[in-house]
Amino acid sequence: MNAGLDVFYLLIGAAMVLAMHAGFAFLEAGTVRSKNQVNALVKILADLGISTLAYLIVGYTVAYGVTFFHSAAVLSGKAGIDGAMGAQGIDLVRFFFLLMFAAAIPAIISGGIAERARFVPQLMATAILVGLVYPFFEGIVWGNHFGIQDWLKDTFDAPFHDFAGSIVVHAVGGWLALGAVHHLGPRMGRYSRDGRLMGVPPSNIPYLALGSWILIVGWFGFNVMSSQNTATASGLVAMNSLMAMVGGMLTALVVGRNDPGFTHNGALAGLVAVCAGSDVMHPLGALVVGCAAGALFVWGFDRCQKDWKLDDVLGVWPLHGLCGLLGGILAGVFGLEALGGMGGVSPWSQLIGSLAGVSYAGAMGFVVYGLLKRTVGIRLSQEEEHRGADLSIHQITATPEQDMAP
Amino acid sequence: MNAGLDVFYLLIGAAMVLAMHAGFAFLEAGTVRSKNQVNALVKILADLGISTLAYLIVGYTVAYGVTFFHSAAVLSGKAGIDGAMGAQGIDLVRFFFLLMFAAAIPAIISGGIAERARFVPQLMATAILVGLVYPFFEGIVWGNHFGIQDWLKDTFDAPFHDFAGSIVVHAVGGWLALGAVHHLGPRMGRYSRDGRLMGVPPSNIPYLALGSWILIVGWFGFNVMSSQNTATASGLVAMNSLMAMVGGMLTALVVGRNDPGFTHNGALAGLVAVCAGSDVMHPLGALVVGCAAGALFVWGFDRCQKDWKLDDVLGVWPLHGLCGLLGGILAGVFGLEALGGMGGVSPWSQLIGSLAGVSYAGAMGFVVYGLLKRTVGIRLSQEEEHRGADLSIHQITATPEQDMAP
Amino acid sequence: MNAGLDVFYLLIGAAMVLAMHAGFAFLEAGTVRSKNQVNALVKILADLGISTLAYLIVGYTVAYGVTFFHSAAVLSGKAGIDGAMGAQGIDLVRFFFLLMFAAAIPAIISGGIAERARFVPQLMATAILVGLVYPFFEGIVWGNHFGIQDWLKDTFDAPFHDFAGSIVVHAVGGWLALGAVHHLGPRMGRYSRDGRLMGVPPSNIPYLALGSWILIVGWFGFNVMSSQNTATASGLVAMNSLMAMVGGMLTALVVGRNDPGFTHNGALAGLVAVCAGSDVMHPLGALVVGCAAGALFVWGFDRCQKDWKLDDVLGVWPLHGLCGLLGGILAGVFGLEALGGMGGVSPWSQLIGSLAGVSYAGAMGFVVYGLLKRTVGIRLSQEEEHRGADLSIHQITATPEQDMAP
Repeated sequence: MNAGLDVFYLLIGAAMVLAMHAGFAFLEAGTVRSKNQVNALVKILADLGISTLAYLIVGYTVAYGVTFFHSAAVLSGKAGIDGAMGAQGIDLVRFFFLLMFAAAIPAIISGGIAERARFVPQLMATAILVGLVYPFFEGIVWGNHFGIQDWLKDTFDAPFHDFAGSIVVHAVGGWLALGAVHHLGPRMGRYSRDGRLMGVPPSNIPYLALGSWILIVGWFGFNVMSSQNTATASGLVAMNSLMAMVGGMLTALVVGRNDPGFTHNGALAGLVAVCAGSDVMHPLGALVVGCAAGALFVWGFDRCQKDWKLDDVLGVWPLHGLCGLLGGILAGVFGLEALGGMGGVSPWSQLIGSLAGVSYAGAMGFVVYGLLKRTVGIRLSQEEEHRGADLSIHQITATPEQDMAP
Repeated sequence: MNAGLDVFYLLIGAAMVLAMHAGFAFLEAGTVRSKNQVNALVKILADLGISTLAYLIVGYTVAYGVTFFHSAAVLSGKAGIDGAMGAQGIDLVRFFFLLMFAAAIPAIISGGIAERARFVPQLMATAILVGLVYPFFEGIVWGNHFGIQDWLKDTFDAPFHDFAGSIVVHAVGGWLALGAVHHLGPRMGRYSRDGRLMGVPPSNIPYLALGSWILIVGWFGFNVMSSQNTATASGLVAMNSLMAMVGGMLTALVVGRNDPGFTHNGALAGLVAVCAGSDVMHPLGALVVGCAAGALFVWGFDRCQKDWKLDDVLGVWPLHGLCGLLGGILAGVFGLEALGGMGGVSPWSQLIGSLAGVSYAGAMGFVVYGLLKRTVGIRLSQEEEHRGADLSIHQITATPEQDMAP
Repeated sequence: MNAGLDVFYLLIGAAMVLAMHAGFAFLEAGTVRSKNQVNALVKILADLGISTLAYLIVGYTVAYGVTFFHSAAVLSGKAGIDGAMGAQGIDLVRFFFLLMFAAAIPAIISGGIAERARFVPQLMATAILVGLVYPFFEGIVWGNHFGIQDWLKDTFDAPFHDFAGSIVVHAVGGWLALGAVHHLGPRMGRYSRDGRLMGVPPSNIPYLALGSWILIVGWFGFNVMSSQNTATASGLVAMNSLMAMVGGMLTALVVGRNDPGFTHNGALAGLVAVCAGSDVMHPLGALVVGCAAGALFVWGFDRCQKDWKLDDVLGVWPLHGLCGLLGGILAGVFGLEALGGMGGVSPWSQLIGSLAGVSYAGAMGFVVYGLLKRTVGIRLSQEEEHRGADLSIHQITATPEQDMAP
């Protein structure tokens, strides 16, 4: 045990997942129209701030029973102090790392509700979701609350396995977004009076690509550092993440007919799906999971927009919700020793845990955003939406010099 | 002791702070007008190059008494060599890490003098500041020159504590910039004949946000790796940096009325202020410090531009100068055990060290830029400024294809 | 030996080189015209995907004789398993790291063939180059195939030394690109009927600068982690990389008369040249090598475009091909103990290995792209090229909202 090494390891993991929030911001900024770019950028940053306070004060205690109302000496594990936490402050870095996961919840939802959501109500939703809704389920899966994991293990020989959060983070985020998107309704002009889909072209593919790249690179911290210490660091996790990323990107490229949005999001689809089983699947299994996720994302995105009239702007429900669900379930298949995996997983536990996660998140998304809709209101006025969230909320556009030129 | 681990640790810290220079570049490129974007980008990179030579040849020796005129075998600490430095070249990575701090000085100043400063005179200033001015004070604080730290310790029970450079790097950079901005004078057209502030809108909020994000993420290397080895790596530093970043961002969001520039710079304000005491404050103390810094930045920026007619383009004096000063002083308050901190700091030492740093830097900024103004001249001609630094200095614009279209 | 630490070390190296691919993408997107930006971004990502499959299935076996057709337990080195690979899956991370080098080959070529190459034929070239051509030479140098390194050592007292791939990666990539660029021919309108060079201005200097910065920072993973474990991690490699980067940037700034493209690429020129000898040269030697590379790049770029009518869009042959060759040879000079280096290198081995690498790559580039040209065709139709690769291949532009506005 080398506390300094593990502090370093988890810190880098946390910094990489922190960077992913910049990725969420640019992915959204590039996909929305120019008049909503500033809002995308500020929203992600502000959500991160609110998430930090909510998770520090309430959420982390809900999930793991740990509180921070101690002196700095206790918190940083100074030797010879009564009740000192882990040496060199490792417990603080662990909080930082897990907070970055929790804060991904509003960052995921943000992409779905873009271009028409009010700002402050979304910050209120963030406080509720990161303070209570997310950590409650997180505590059941990763904090072993209520002994549900023990029961699954006794019944199906293995607990619900979600190594880096295909279900706990991504599917929960995606299915929470579903309720938000439903309650908000589609953007003005997204569907014609007779229900036909109208084009809303993205503003900037390079920003979208930049966001995707930041997410891709950061994801290797998200997945590998989920071991939380170097003694259990696993090259298999890195390899499987790479395979799923490549698989998702390539199938999205083909199925999506070279579209840059699908290609760059396809890589993320593979990464979403591989989180759960990245430590137990064979690399070829991870490749298959990634390929399936890339195709599922393209299919789901088109169905949402075209057939189901669900105006999920960045496709966060198909991306995080559906691909996360796929990954949670398939960890119970490709993790099996019979398929070259490491074993120690159960298809039944995976199915139960995955469906429980999406049901819980889907229900909570409808409830939380429904309540906010009825009380404070969650949607911009027609005029505000028409002017764009940037001018309406932030009194500035993304390119002020150009827009203010005479 | 594991030399390889510490080389790895400091290398990642150095790479993260190296990346911060890209953050400075994009923060400036997004804030200035389009006609000065290229200059912002090239200036930061060129300043880094000149800083490297100045710090290698003179500065590092001034600060720490170390020179590099030895064989590669000696420098890289090859076993069994007479006078070999640290094993596996750890001393070279330490130089790299500390050079990245030194090179932050011209990168900070660059944002203040943007849009009207000449290029080569600024490179000359960089050589003087990074070769002599900065390392002289650095050597007093971190190199224990002249026994001043010993005297403070004897007198006030604790030396001046500046863990990661709120004063040594940020306040010194910000107060040096004050002299540069004063001698340069405001941009053409910034104030009307009767002294009213005229709008100069930023060119590109996404570039500004990208710069801020790169700085935010890199800052965790800046602060945590300031321990310089894993044995003293501290999760408390990471936690406090996060808290101050969040605090600064949220108050700047509120005080700055959702403005994206204030919000993204507010996060940096919190990080500037937390550097000094990040290893000794309680996380809630760090949050308070960050909140104060975010508000101070917004207030200071507006006062500079509106009331004091100090045309500090990016607000580097309020950001690095004022928030750095705040952080240096408050480390002596929130670092106290009575306020949940780790102790070992003295309010008096902090006050003396902080005021000494800003006085020294303020004076040197006026002298160095004053001398350069009288000798070589530091400001573009009216015609050059009107055309923009890009065309005047680099013979190209930021979007040449678009600007050269028929 | 601490397997977890080394997994961590190589993972971060791999993630940093993975990020470099985003650097290649933005460097190209910023340098080409707006109508080819999307293609630049998608091409780099798709090449990475095809490279992964080709290197996994064929290339890595060609280079090192390792295959991955084992269970996850064997691959990840689970204790007590017959034939288990390195503990904690270190061999999988090593594959990841070396794959990122291999995938740099098509990323380098991509910049040379930009704006007129067909998409699918380039993916086919990628499969051939990363599956066979690159790993064959890689295996000779780094896998000690055919005993050629032993022969060099017996004959000249030292094998061919290419620590991080000035020749194996960069020169090979650059000289392969030479054949591709030759077979493609120049872009429409690049030369007038009487052979004069016509201006094709870059689209976006900030994207170019962003790409360069990502490459610069990632390069410290590329070079330092080439030691592949912390026990041999060397601060000298980091220091020398920094010195060469600064040298290349500053000379390109001066020789290139403040041009932002030359300045940002000059930093890369220095880094290309220092790879081979970064572990054996003195920092001042690295500075000289970097300075020479920066000047060589500017000279070579101008000669290619103006005199030799070789329309290498990003100048990848001068950058990677010529500067890589320079670095391979000079490692045998500045690595000598007489010049302050660590010794253990031979000028003759460096000359032979370097020339062998560029000859092999030059020949293979002509053959592979010649065959593809005769069979499937490698160039867009005139109409497709005129419309731009974005609309022709991806049915979208880089700024769709703006381009589709009424």
